[in-house]
This record gives sequence, C-alpha cells and structure tokens, in this order.
Amino acid sequence: MKHNFGAGPCILPQEVFKEASQAIIEFNDTGLSILEISHRSKAFEAVIEETEALVRELLSVPAGYSILFLQGGASQQFAVVPMNLLPQTGKAAYLDSGTWASKAYKEAQKFGIVQVVASSKEANYTYVPKNFEIPADAAYFHYTSNNTIYGTELFETPKSPIPIVCDMSSDILSREITVSDYGLIYAGAQKNMGPAGVTLVIVKDDLLGKTGRDIPAIFDYRKHIEAKSLYNTPPVYAIYVSLLNLRWLKAKGGIVEIERENIIKARTLYDEIERNPLFKGTAAVEDRSRMNVTFVMENPELEKAFLTLAEERGFVGLKGHRSVGGFRASIYNALTITSINALVDAMQEFAEKNA
Amino acid sequence: MKHNFGAGPCILPQEVFKEASQAIIEFNDTGLSILEISHRSKAFEAVIEETEALVRELLSVPAGYSILFLQGGASQQFAVVPMNLLPQTGKAAYLDSGTWASKAYKEAQKFGIVQVVASSKEANYTYVPKNFEIPADAAYFHYTSNNTIYGTELFETPKSPIPIVCDMSSDILSREITVSDYGLIYAGAQKNMGPAGVTLVIVKDDLLGKTGRDIPAIFDYRKHIEAKSLYNTPPVYAIYVSLLNLRWLKAKGGIVEIERENIIKARTLYDEIERNPLFKGTAAVEDRSRMNVTFVMENPELEKAFLTLAEERGFVGLKGHRSVGGFRASIYNALTITSINALVDAMQEFAEKNA
Repeated sequence: MKHNFGAGPCILPQEVFKEASQAIIEFNDTGLSILEISHRSKAFEAVIEETEALVRELLSVPAGYSILFLQGGASQQFAVVPMNLLPQTGKAAYLDSGTWASKAYKEAQKFGIVQVVASSKEANYTYVPKNFEIPADAAYFHYTSNNTIYGTELFETPKSPIPIVCDMSSDILSREITVSDYGLIYAGAQKNMGPAGVTLVIVKDDLLGKTGRDIPAIFDYRKHIEAKSLYNTPPVYAIYVSLLNLRWLKAKGGIVEIERENIIKARTLYDEIERNPLFKGTAAVEDRSRMNVTFVMENPELEKAFLTLAEERGFVGLKGHRSVGGFRASIYNALTITSINALVDAMQEFAEKNA
Repeated sequence: MKHNFGAGPCILPQEVFKEASQAIIEFNDTGLSILEISHRSKAFEAVIEETEALVRELLSVPAGYSILFLQGGASQQFAVVPMNLLPQTGKAAYLDSGTWASKAYKEAQKFGIVQVVASSKEANYTYVPKNFEIPADAAYFHYTSNNTIYGTELFETPKSPIPIVCDMSSDILSREITVSDYGLIYAGAQKNMGPAGVTLVIVKDDLLGKTGRDIPAIFDYRKHIEAKSLYNTPPVYAIYVSLLNLRWLKAKGGIVEIERENIIKARTLYDEIERNPLFKGTAAVEDRSRMNVTFVMENPELEKAFLTLAEERGFVGLKGHRSVGGFRASIYNALTITSINALVDAMQEFAEKNA
C-alpha cells in the first residue's frame, strides 16, 4: 500500500479513481467514453452544472459571484487577474509570502504598478508577514493563502479597504472560508479539488469591466461567465473528476467535516515533530500549514536514511522542496489518518533506532 | 454499438480507452493512479518525453523546432501567437476561411495591425479563398488548415514570403505535412491527438524573442521550451492519453497509413452524397475536408426524419453546426470504415424509403 504525501498533483479518494476509471470505458450509460463526448452535449452540460452547483454549495458562494472552470493553472491567473482587475494606470498590492506569491506579483508587474506590502523572503519565507498596511488606492490586494513549498498558511483573511484576490490553490475546500470577504479566488484544481488541468475561479461580477483594457477574449472573465465556462472546449475530464471529488466531499459531510479531520491530521503530525528529538519543523508555529507539513532533521546526515525507510514503507512524495530541504508531508483532504499514523510510527521507530 | 461522428471532443480508439481507464486505477506498476502522480516524477517525465518523441517522429519534426504541450486550446493560441510573433509596431496577415480563422484574426487585432488577405465569408465559407497575395512586410501569415464547421480543408500549404502559422486543430496527424514549411503549428488535441485539455505547439525556435514585448512568463513560448513543457503543472492525464493515442497511430503504420485510410473513408462518404439523390454536399468540391463532411438534404423537410433514423442506428454527433445546418459527419482518425459504411447504408435505405 502506498501513502501518497505528494504536493500535487496529489492523492484523491480511491472511490473517485474507481468511478473515474469506469467513465473512461462508459460514461453514464451513453455508450460512449467520457473522453469522446462533446462538451456541448446534454450529458456534459449536466456535469458542469452540477460541478458548479457543488462548489457553490460547499463553499457557500453568495449571489453576485460567478464560478468558472478554466485552463492554465494558477500560474496563468497570475497574468489574467491583473488583465481583468488592474486599470491601465492603476496599482495593485501584493503580499510576498513565498515562491508562488512572488511569481504572482512579478507577472502583475507586466501590467502596471505593483506595491509589495510585506515580504518574508529574507527569512526564507518561514513565516507569513503580519501588520502590513494595504493601500486604499490600489485596485486590489493579492495574497496566497497557503504556501505549499514553505508549509505556511494564512488562516485569517486580512482586513482590507480594497477587494482581496486570493490564490487558494493548495488549501481551497480544506477549511471554511467566507467568500464574500474576497473579490476573487482562484485555485489550480490539483490539490483538493481534482486532477491537474482545470483551474477554479470565483469572481465577484461587479469588479469586472473597469480596467479600460482591450482584453483578449480568451482571457476576459466576462466572456467565460457569459458562456458558462464553455467559451471554448473545456478540459472535460478534469472537470468530471472534480465533480466526483466534490460529490465525495459532500457525502462525507462537506467542509465542516473535512476541516475537523484536517485539524486532527495536522495536529497528530506536528505533535510528533515537536515530541521527536530527531525532527524539527521549519515554519513559524503560528503560521504552520494544515496542508503541507515541512520539517527537517536536527542532524541532516540522517535525512537520507529516513527517506530510505520512507520508501520502504510506501511513502510517496515526502522529500522536501529544494528551497527548504528535509521533508514535506502534504496531507490534503483525501489523505487519511491511517497514512498520518504510518508516518508517525516510522518517525518513532527511526528515533528509537537512532537514539 | 455507437458510431461517434462528433466534431470534438471526439472518438479515440477503443484500445486507448481501455489502457487509459486502467491507468486511473494503477499507472505502470507505481501503485498509484496516473491522476495522483507528481508531474515532476520520473514516471511522468518518461510520459512527456515519449509523447514529444512520438510527435517528432510521426510528423518528422526537424531540428530547430520545439514541441510544446500547453493548456487553453487553440482559442488561447489565437492570443498567444501574436504575443510571441507580432512586433509591437508590426503587422500580421490572416486568411479568413471560417469561424475559427475569423476568431483568430480578431484576437490578433488586439496586438497590432492585421491584414486579412482574403475571405470567403460572403459565401458562408463554403470554399477556401485562393490566389491571394501574402504581404512580404508582415511578421507572419496565419491560416486554418481545416475548417471544422464548414467542412473545407486546405491541403496545399500556400507559398509565402514570410513564416506561416497554421491552426491544424482538426486535421493534424491525419495526413502528411512538411513541418519545415511552417514557422509555427498549433492544435487543440481533442480531434486526432487526444482528449480535450492539452494543446500542441510546434514552433521554430529562431522566430522567438523578436517582438520587443514584455510577455507574461506563462504565455512566453521560450519559458515553456526551457522548461520542456513543465513550466507549471501540465495537464498530466490529457498528455498521457495523447501518448497512448500516438502509440496507437505509430503501431498502425503512422501518418502514411492513416492518410490512406482517411482518403478511403472520405471518398466513400462523398461518393454516396454525390450518388444519393436526397443529399448534397455544402463545400466546394475541390476544398472538401477529409475530416468533417458537411451535407444537407435537397428537401430540408426530410432532415428531421433522417436524424431520427441516425439516432436509432447509434450515430452520434451527426447534426450539422447551426451555421451550416443539415449534417456533419466528423470522420477523424479513430473512426473506422465500419462506421462510414453504416452511415452510407442508412443514407441508401432512407433514400429508398423516401424515393
């Protein structure tokens, strides 16, 4: 048995894989594979409508917000967000809390003035900056809610005098949020929503159409809203697997229940990191992520041996990102407490052997 | 049994579906689903490398051309091509041979001057314009090799004094081409290459970096070339299914063999349309597409009855696009001569009953 701690694309529920596999052979008694149905067919219309309805229900998305399924990942949104929200002569404010946050503001600089309100780069992004001031004259304030590489997460939405744009790629659907606190939320699906290849955008309609830019149609949120995410051929299968995953999430009790489980999973692992004399966390305690647990060894020379043990135990994706080193356990929604316990057991055994 | 004549996403070989379904449960003895493996894993690196190598082999892509697997479909390339190839103060030339060709030049107009060298719009795009002049002072000449909606195809590459950019979404891998005739070729995968969600780009490297534009990284072909299509998380599964489909194409004899079959399939159907007194083709005979066969009835009142018969026979996706009406049989690589014969039989029976 494998325990998939990969940072993304990542584990999804086994039930989802089973149904996703079946639909490749035959989708919903159509006599066709899901891969060969038209995106304009009634069968697929039903898929995209239910997917949207489930996102709306699970996240309590209020009226006045549109839900889109696009392509290109969060990296594409780094450019598409300023195209749609940053006036030609305007300014945007960004929080620099990690590699992706930094890529986001650098892409935005190609569209106008960017003010970085705070950065933790000098500390290798081990914490999330606080007590920064958001300029009231900027078009929007952008931040990354979970920093996948550094294992930090911002649980409290900053108070902001201007609309907030948030990259929630690695923690969306893992905990309760108040969508009305945001002007725009985007997320690559490949953590808690579905497989790689689709990007969720939730946008407040009345923020659009105010930049004075002549936006290419394919990058204009309004075109996608009008067309209900069918402006052009969407990533049919990635949306379908997201639907299966959202159904799974709803059936198990929705965000409230998954957040409860995620808190237990993260606490179990962080407790062991704190207790175990061989390991130590890399992120500031108050900013520790519930999705990506980053840790190293007090004695770095032992890290290779622990990775070998991890492989023997069927742990996948545990090696830390090169920017941090050591280990990163990504413990997304579909990862079970059984996998957490297996990791904790391995850490304890390793500590005993190397005491 | 279904006969899938859909225009795209469309039929792929049954063998491909079978293997594609299996990989969702377990991919290559990894103990993991293809949907949960990292795009940075060795297993996926091998996938993308083989996919690229097969495209290079099947289309004889010469040195000096890069092969990319991107997101966003051909519609995204309508904007990304001028970003990368049209200098700030430059001009591009476009041929207007259909709906998609027209969308392409309209998107390009947002980036500079566009000269439409010829258009068949006034004839509802029933033919491909010929004898146009391509201006030598434009940065590139763009055309659409197959017009999916109108059932026309341009088999001969126009002679051009400037680099040619071609949208081959609906006929790539269906017939032999000479890649060195082109500066850039792009294609949404969801016809002959794979499922929806990935876009093929073949680009001559030395055309890039000459526009003077500060291109967002995500839209800069050079960034994707440097990163070997792993600049950000790629659409893992869509690439994998494309690989399976390319392997199938190679095993059956490559482009030479599939072109031979496609010629027979198209001739069989066009012959029946010409022979049958109830039906008539809509495209100019010399421009008839081998991929999308458009036809109507001499008596439009009978069309509904034929569509009913088509449904009874398990024909899917035969209704014509609203811009043309009547019928459209999309007969891509994976559609067998058996399905063509079934359609011809139905047309003959219908003619006898309605004689």
